[in-house]
Amino acid sequence: MASNIPDIVIGRLPVYLRALTRLMQEGQEVTSSHELGKRLGISSAQIRKDLSHFGGFGKQGTGYQIAYLIEQLRQVLSVNREWEVALVGAGDLGSALAHYRGFGDRGFRIACVFDNSPQKVGTKVGEYTVLPTSDIAKVIRERGIKIAMIAVPAEKAQEVANVLIEAGIRAILNYAPMNLNVPAGIRVQYIDPVVQLQRMTYYLT
Amino acid sequence: MASNIPDIVIGRLPVYLRALTRLMQEGQEVTSSHELGKRLGISSAQIRKDLSHFGGFGKQGTGYQIAYLIEQLRQVLSVNREWEVALVGAGDLGSALAHYRGFGDRGFRIACVFDNSPQKVGTKVGEYTVLPTSDIAKVIRERGIKIAMIAVPAEKAQEVANVLIEAGIRAILNYAPMNLNVPAGIRVQYIDPVVQLQRMTYYLT
Repeated sequence: MASNIPDIVIGRLPVYLRALTRLMQEGQEVTSSHELGKRLGISSAQIRKDLSHFGGFGKQGTGYQIAYLIEQLRQVLSVNREWEVALVGAGDLGSALAHYRGFGDRGFRIACVFDNSPQKVGTKVGEYTVLPTSDIAKVIRERGIKIAMIAVPAEKAQEVANVLIEAGIRAILNYAPMNLNVPAGIRVQYIDPVVQLQRMTYYLT
Repeated sequence: MASNIPDIVIGRLPVYLRALTRLMQEGQEVTSSHELGKRLGISSAQIRKDLSHFGGFGKQGTGYQIAYLIEQLRQVLSVNREWEVALVGAGDLGSALAHYRGFGDRGFRIACVFDNSPQKVGTKVGEYTVLPTSDIAKVIRERGIKIAMIAVPAEKAQEVANVLIEAGIRAILNYAPMNLNVPAGIRVQYIDPVVQLQRMTYYLT
């Protein structure tokens, strides 16, 4: 696999994959960088350049075979398999994530849900029985889980991240509104609605 | 206000603001681009360059006064005021957003919640009484709301976006896992956990 691809290109591939999957669901079999770009608000040149890092996937003038391109992107992104994900935090957000049905067909499955509240431990959240946070290290090691989502308050997130990483987690999706300090080699992505909203208000005045 | 700032710079300002606010909450009064960069995993040169678009905010060698920099960033991002936000979708995710207490002190307040389900309309979600989606246009026009969050299934999101924009919405935070087609001048940001997870799995193999 190509190894010196800029992270910003990698970041666009899941968006391409999502749009292509949608086109396929709509019954389409072939698309073009032009059509895809129009859907995504990205230039067709950018899309061709991004995909060229991986060999191109399309023939000049005939467009992309959607099913083939989807399969290739799933392979590049390593989501042509199912990843188990640990979820820490069973509050409103954690509970919404535990109920979310959009992970399964895109390469992920929540495998376990942890919370430190005695009122929550042992109760059901969706199909999961909430486990105590003291079990994090043991469960993650035993199951060999590499990916976690953090949905705890900001003041607890670093402590939770430390435990997760110590147990073998290598990628964290952090919903807590703060930046994590992690060792080199650990990937972190952030989801914070306020950061996204503030990015837009700049343009509203 | 500076008008030709790259959007990628604007996108980092809320992250700086969040980190600075946290430093202030921790009791700190002065910081440096070096310290901030270490917290955020961004180079100090990048931070200085980003802030220089707006005049710099700091004196060479003495660092940044945190309270002052926060105030300036809030002004640049137009969050030194409170924006009303319309939320469409009162399912698991919409409900978690309606309960989220992290909007208020960062410039936003959910003003109304809409859903198209007869089982939900009229019920309470957090402090909000769910309104029917047929009221979207009227309520948003009357209140002059400019920002909306979409938390409905993917197949409904474009239709909802069209109604919102027609009613005067100019910025949309879209949680539905699909790309929206919007007229020029309308801002859209996306939150899709699977896109973020897939961006990390590339590096896990």
